[in-house]
Amino acid sequence: MLSALLKKCRWTQKHLLGIRDLSREEILSVVDLAAGLKKEKDAGAPLKGRRLLNFFAESSTRTKTSFGIAARALGLEVLDLSPAASSLTKGESLKDTALTIESMGVDFAVVRHSASGAPHFVAGKIQGSVLNAGDGTNEHPTQALLDSLTIRESLGKINGLRIALVGDILHSRVARSNLWAHAKLGNEVTVVGPPTLIPRHIDALGARVSTDLDAVLPEMDVVMMLRMQLERQQAGLFPSIMEYHRFWGLTRERMARLRPGAIIMHPGPMNRGVEIAAEAADSARSVILDQVANGVLIRMAVLLLLDRCS
Amino acid sequence: MLSALLKKCRWTQKHLLGIRDLSREEILSVVDLAAGLKKEKDAGAPLKGRRLLNFFAESSTRTKTSFGIAARALGLEVLDLSPAASSLTKGESLKDTALTIESMGVDFAVVRHSASGAPHFVAGKIQGSVLNAGDGTNEHPTQALLDSLTIRESLGKINGLRIALVGDILHSRVARSNLWAHAKLGNEVTVVGPPTLIPRHIDALGARVSTDLDAVLPEMDVVMMLRMQLERQQAGLFPSIMEYHRFWGLTRERMARLRPGAIIMHPGPMNRGVEIAAEAADSARSVILDQVANGVLIRMAVLLLLDRCS
Amino acid sequence: MLSALLKKCRWTQKHLLGIRDLSREEILSVVDLAAGLKKEKDAGAPLKGRRLLNFFAESSTRTKTSFGIAARALGLEVLDLSPAASSLTKGESLKDTALTIESMGVDFAVVRHSASGAPHFVAGKIQGSVLNAGDGTNEHPTQALLDSLTIRESLGKINGLRIALVGDILHSRVARSNLWAHAKLGNEVTVVGPPTLIPRHIDALGARVSTDLDAVLPEMDVVMMLRMQLERQQAGLFPSIMEYHRFWGLTRERMARLRPGAIIMHPGPMNRGVEIAAEAADSARSVILDQVANGVLIRMAVLLLLDRCS
Repeated sequence: MLSALLKKCRWTQKHLLGIRDLSREEILSVVDLAAGLKKEKDAGAPLKGRRLLNFFAESSTRTKTSFGIAARALGLEVLDLSPAASSLTKGESLKDTALTIESMGVDFAVVRHSASGAPHFVAGKIQGSVLNAGDGTNEHPTQALLDSLTIRESLGKINGLRIALVGDILHSRVARSNLWAHAKLGNEVTVVGPPTLIPRHIDALGARVSTDLDAVLPEMDVVMMLRMQLERQQAGLFPSIMEYHRFWGLTRERMARLRPGAIIMHPGPMNRGVEIAAEAADSARSVILDQVANGVLIRMAVLLLLDRCS
Repeated sequence: MLSALLKKCRWTQKHLLGIRDLSREEILSVVDLAAGLKKEKDAGAPLKGRRLLNFFAESSTRTKTSFGIAARALGLEVLDLSPAASSLTKGESLKDTALTIESMGVDFAVVRHSASGAPHFVAGKIQGSVLNAGDGTNEHPTQALLDSLTIRESLGKINGLRIALVGDILHSRVARSNLWAHAKLGNEVTVVGPPTLIPRHIDALGARVSTDLDAVLPEMDVVMMLRMQLERQQAGLFPSIMEYHRFWGLTRERMARLRPGAIIMHPGPMNRGVEIAAEAADSARSVILDQVANGVLIRMAVLLLLDRCS
Repeated sequence: MLSALLKKCRWTQKHLLGIRDLSREEILSVVDLAAGLKKEKDAGAPLKGRRLLNFFAESSTRTKTSFGIAARALGLEVLDLSPAASSLTKGESLKDTALTIESMGVDFAVVRHSASGAPHFVAGKIQGSVLNAGDGTNEHPTQALLDSLTIRESLGKINGLRIALVGDILHSRVARSNLWAHAKLGNEVTVVGPPTLIPRHIDALGARVSTDLDAVLPEMDVVMMLRMQLERQQAGLFPSIMEYHRFWGLTRERMARLRPGAIIMHPGPMNRGVEIAAEAADSARSVILDQVANGVLIRMAVLLLLDRCS
């Protein structure tokens, strides 16, 4: 029963802006609730009569669709204010867009924006709850939450693990949210990638740094490959796709270095042949499709917690 | 009760194509019904089983979203036939698009189009009711209706007022619908703007004309700033944004010239720093966000009247 | 009653990928069920709780809207994963997109794609049913089904007829699906068009070939005009629009050559003045708008058969 699942929740947030703001107990509340929802056939429209607005100023179809499925499964009405960024607001300031959203009357605003901090700004302008669906290079909190659920399902626990984040750490909001999550959950993260794509002072977030993927792989319980934005090459941040694949890609040869039981993750969409070989993406170790399925459950859980427990 | 609200309605229109077609009583019927709906918590899906199609051949997110919220609040099914104008109909004539809409079976078609008269044309081709959501430089009737509701809420009456419309009158369908509305409602409108952007013979619509904003402001109950389309500058219609702001913008200095109780309006989206200073947009006199909120109620009221009283 | 209508269905398909895969009985099952649905006022949401995803990698508004209306009329939840192809999957393979769709949990996936065979590929990757909404130059099966319903309604039978398909046969998935349908249903198809736009070996599909529209017209019960993609001219496949219209267009003069009772069809959107004159499109012989209306019914029927009988 949903009410039984929610009774145990420890949650104090009005918004979901970043994993950085959450306590370990709050992270586990989301993961537990999502796991509980997996066993429910029908959530029964507990949020019927409420309204969720998807405001995606950066294009996205996967995350937006996932939020849409989650919201409708809870009985929410879903609105979309997400055309091409160019025409979106015809030069309107984010402040005015936020105030307009508020005046239309929404209970939840899901915000994706190329500017780090945009969802926090919107949260200061509206009565409803804001869910960060990715802001610049800052955070993508539902991604780290669904990753945590997937890890716990696959490995039976979500602490004391060794997790590698591999690729473009510098520009990755997925990496940043996962770094916060695993620091709180008590997992040891190693970031691996080209030196040009690893931010300085990353060790302040508790992460180990390596540039030698081959050396790191045998120790890991979880290998999380990050999407390489191909436009980074033009910016001179890595020399060629082939070279990137050879040094930082999860190739078939590297698969052999993984420990028994280690799992492979990717937030999608994948560049097969760049950061991950087809053999790795399709192997039995890959839990990439579980991540997608869990994304819907995590977003349902967050919406429920924001509505019922905050 | 909705039925009590609707009992008093005086409405004869099958479509909402322009304020020009409405009687004073019909305008007040929409405004009264929208005001009544504001007090209803739940409209109760009175139009369930009917279908509304948004056909926006010009891009718009605010108006389309507002119509969508209003329609769903009444229980309507909402369809969208509004991609980029380029690919929309692959060269299909508006006639064939209208006939296609009709053949799919819709009860309401909300039409925005760059050509003045397009909604009227569609109305001649389909059985359902057409709502003009902005056609070329002709009309944007729901905007003038929501403006009228907002004025009455703020000032306690909607006749005998002095209203300034400031900016690009020539190209503004918002201005044109407001001119029709206030001529019928018995308010005195003064249009103010660069001579290049004021249409000839505008006095035929009962409006006074001025090019001196400073002289006009102290007499006004309502100051309605219009959006300046920045591409007008390239067309040579005004010299520079800075000069436009200095002569026709509602600056902080000009705020001081307003009468006590005078209100500031803008149809949005605003160009802050162009036609309106941030201090004006955010001041206690501004009712700009009330306009957005009232937009949903006005659109609900129009849909109800078209369905129940026409 | 829906259950009575479905009792008679002969249907063995898990997907609707092409007319090529259907038996004559299956084609007639769809047509019969759609005709039966026409008499039902309210389908009563028999597929409530199921989810349909529109995945249109090629832009389309008409077919997507038609599937959306049909799905909602049956109580399905409708999701859309159909942005501009460019940004859609950010380089993701169709395989990964299909697996992602599957992981989100959908019961029906409607797929339009520029690559022939794409829906078949998706069908191999997901548990749910795939409906081909047009794949490359291969098939557009719901179009041929709605055409068959429209012909039977207009002429009282759907076998033993003489049907002309006129225009760009080479690139037309509408033509290909109709060729399969009428070969199975027992109608004689003549394809007519510029030699450059008629595929070789088309007679293998049982069709007669002609390049003389004037000679063919007097013998036909059905004249189905195909849309001319104007970009074919640049490719040198026909010399000019005016010449195309003169030789292959259904002009007013050619209308006079038609048999009494012969009907005119077009899958839309029409290029008036190119493949079809306005007089022909708007004449009493034209059943083009019936095609649109029947499209919704055919799509409802296919969804019901896939759900209940496969």
